Amino acid sequence: MKSKRKIITLLTDFGSRDSYVAEMKAIILSIYPEATLIDITHEVVETNVVQGAYILARSVGFFPKGSIHLAVVDPGVGGVRRPIVIEATSAVLIGPDNGLLASAAERLGLKHIYLIENKKYIPSRVSETFHGRDIFAPIAAYIASGILPAEFGREIFDITQSPIPKSKLLGKKIGGEIIYVDKFGNLVTNIESKLLHTLGVKCGETLKLRVGRGKQIKVKLVKSYSDVSSGGLLLIPGSGYSIEISVNLGSAAEILTAGIGIEIELTTPRVKTGLS
Amino acid sequence: MKSKRKIITLLTDFGSRDSYVAEMKAIILSIYPEATLIDITHEVVETNVVQGAYILARSVGFFPKGSIHLAVVDPGVGGVRRPIVIEATSAVLIGPDNGLLASAAERLGLKHIYLIENKKYIPSRVSETFHGRDIFAPIAAYIASGILPAEFGREIFDITQSPIPKSKLLGKKIGGEIIYVDKFGNLVTNIESKLLHTLGVKCGETLKLRVGRGKQIKVKLVKSYSDVSSGGLLLIPGSGYSIEISVNLGSAAEILTAGIGIEIELTTPRVKTGLS
Amino acid sequence: MKSKRKIITLLTDFGSRDSYVAEMKAIILSIYPEATLIDITHEVVETNVVQGAYILARSVGFFPKGSIHLAVVDPGVGGVRRPIVIEATSAVLIGPDNGLLASAAERLGLKHIYLIENKKYIPSRVSETFHGRDIFAPIAAYIASGILPAEFGREIFDITQSPIPKSKLLGKKIGGEIIYVDKFGNLVTNIESKLLHTLGVKCGETLKLRVGRGKQIKVKLVKSYSDVSSGGLLLIPGSGYSIEISVNLGSAAEILTAGIGIEIELTTPRVKTGLS
Repeated sequence: MKSKRKIITLLTDFGSRDSYVAEMKAIILSIYPEATLIDITHEVVETNVVQGAYILARSVGFFPKGSIHLAVVDPGVGGVRRPIVIEATSAVLIGPDNGLLASAAERLGLKHIYLIENKKYIPSRVSETFHGRDIFAPIAAYIASGILPAEFGREIFDITQSPIPKSKLLGKKIGGEIIYVDKFGNLVTNIESKLLHTLGVKCGETLKLRVGRGKQIKVKLVKSYSDVSSGGLLLIPGSGYSIEISVNLGSAAEILTAGIGIEIELTTPRVKTGLS
Repeated sequence: MKSKRKIITLLTDFGSRDSYVAEMKAIILSIYPEATLIDITHEVVETNVVQGAYILARSVGFFPKGSIHLAVVDPGVGGVRRPIVIEATSAVLIGPDNGLLASAAERLGLKHIYLIENKKYIPSRVSETFHGRDIFAPIAAYIASGILPAEFGREIFDITQSPIPKSKLLGKKIGGEIIYVDKFGNLVTNIESKLLHTLGVKCGETLKLRVGRGKQIKVKLVKSYSDVSSGGLLLIPGSGYSIEISVNLGSAAEILTAGIGIEIELTTPRVKTGLS
Repeated sequence: MKSKRKIITLLTDFGSRDSYVAEMKAIILSIYPEATLIDITHEVVETNVVQGAYILARSVGFFPKGSIHLAVVDPGVGGVRRPIVIEATSAVLIGPDNGLLASAAERLGLKHIYLIENKKYIPSRVSETFHGRDIFAPIAAYIASGILPAEFGREIFDITQSPIPKSKLLGKKIGGEIIYVDKFGNLVTNIESKLLHTLGVKCGETLKLRVGRGKQIKVKLVKSYSDVSSGGLLLIPGSGYSIEISVNLGSAAEILTAGIGIEIELTTPRVKTGLS
């Protein structure tokens, strides 16, 4: 079963109290009334591009092919940062060129990047404080209507890199960072689950974890929260793409008093032959 | 006017900050793009099955026949609790078998209960921390697509009972409990409005109310907040199915400093003949 | 591209924790399954009609022609205030007659006002605490289905005026008020941007601003936040219809410790000839 109604997702730091998100949807529906509008979140911490980039990167892959993702966490609105459209293998991303879209584009398979500069698709009166509504929302609707990304402006070949730091592997040690804390207090790291997999570390094994300047502690890598007793600390391949530090029926953020930006160090049981 | 687009409602304790709800919707739309997705709430207090059960039970009856209700408040995710589908007279309920669905099923008219165990409908890779996305969301979409609930697994005949306590009638006294406090500070009790109706208590009559270990106070049963003066305490058949303790233009929760789990005792003016 | 699916927007003070908004949507979909439902906001401060009126007035103009706007901020629910439908030039407004709809109606072009009184369109059992679900939601759905507003009751010619105060011009001084504070701490005034335009004040000019009983300060009227340095105070034609007091990369509400209801005075550089 295939729908002719295009999906447009929205991710912002606009919150749900003001009418900003509704006004973006109003503009989209004025141009493309058949849109299926899905809110990814509007509760990104204000101007926090790292948090927005992570949420976008982890969620876009679950949407059907052909989805259009509109993301606006934009501390530089009205300034010099460029508005862009990214054509990925099976989706389109729209937003400011400030790193917000980069990780999502990489995960989806980046193909082309275009500037938004064609006056034909930009309203004559644009509020310089609300490009989400006046520039990005119309573009999303035009793409849903069938306009090709290349119509909006010149192709460019460089964009601002993702602000999400990469983890580093050094022998048995992986240096990482907490890049997100969810509502349940799960500490999401930037250590990709597939890295542990590649290193041959299996669920059930015990690793050594250091959080910030704390002491090294032994923590088990498990498949399910309930694999440790209530209140127990654990490492788990999260529902996103990376390893999370969690507590069964509790909050790891509270128990470890840790949050975004805190460095972590994971020591694996052994060095994998062939890797260094 | 009949729509061919099935309604799928979502109720969780996932909040709106993370992308968890959006990822469930992404999976649903991948399988059944025509879904009309309605959020009941995602602000259930974390792992509070009582609160989730009440909100689900009070709201499902307002939706059109054929609606599919997906509810996930699931402290035991990844553990032994069973994933189930409940076929009710005019709707389908999907979620964990931890009591969350029981009151709603009872109010809708329970017909059949099925396990979710058929590998054909379960993704090969399931995150053990996020069954909402990886198990329950696909099932909701398959049902919307026309797959019968019996396809997902064996019929079972017992489920975990609702965690919402029942009120007790003893002569003129009804022993109840506060089971929910809404945003306006209205104290929702587990005393069904139809019980007072059956007992012949009419709006305009005065009852005696004890909240917790407080003193007995006289409170009028009214039809409308404005039937008492501003700041006045009142009893009212709520917009759900049960009696609420409210304050006109104020918060009963604040004035009585009462909340979920507090016992209440209601003394009716007389014993109804034929009832004991 | 035209959709046959009518847009129904919802604005309330019901919040997102309880199931109240979902129950309104359930009733709408029962009567008119094809509705495109858009939440404007449900986070209006409880019973704050001014705030609701502003958000409604600023956002309705962005929606396509034919949209139906359902707004419920209703401290007098169940009391004497009248339920009304307003037919505007290109949209319909539904809600309580307490001033909530007045500014939006004025901006959209008010044509006719009708009472909601025809028993044919009001359920036989109405909760006197929840007219949003039991009276207003069905009317919105009936209008979407094609029922004309005049069907619901008598035409009336007076409604409660908007609670949003008007600004006053006296020579070079404009007396105004802060009527809204958004999530980013921008202070929205009741001084319409077009008034400054009419007075010949241009972006780039410096005005004198007094907030509450504070001292007069010089502030530049700019087009974009980034026209002043980080942390700098500015005046800007907001993304709504009026002038906002903002801080580049900061919160004006925090820096000026100002909020809703605070009076402001703006002194323009000169008196425009022909205006007094």
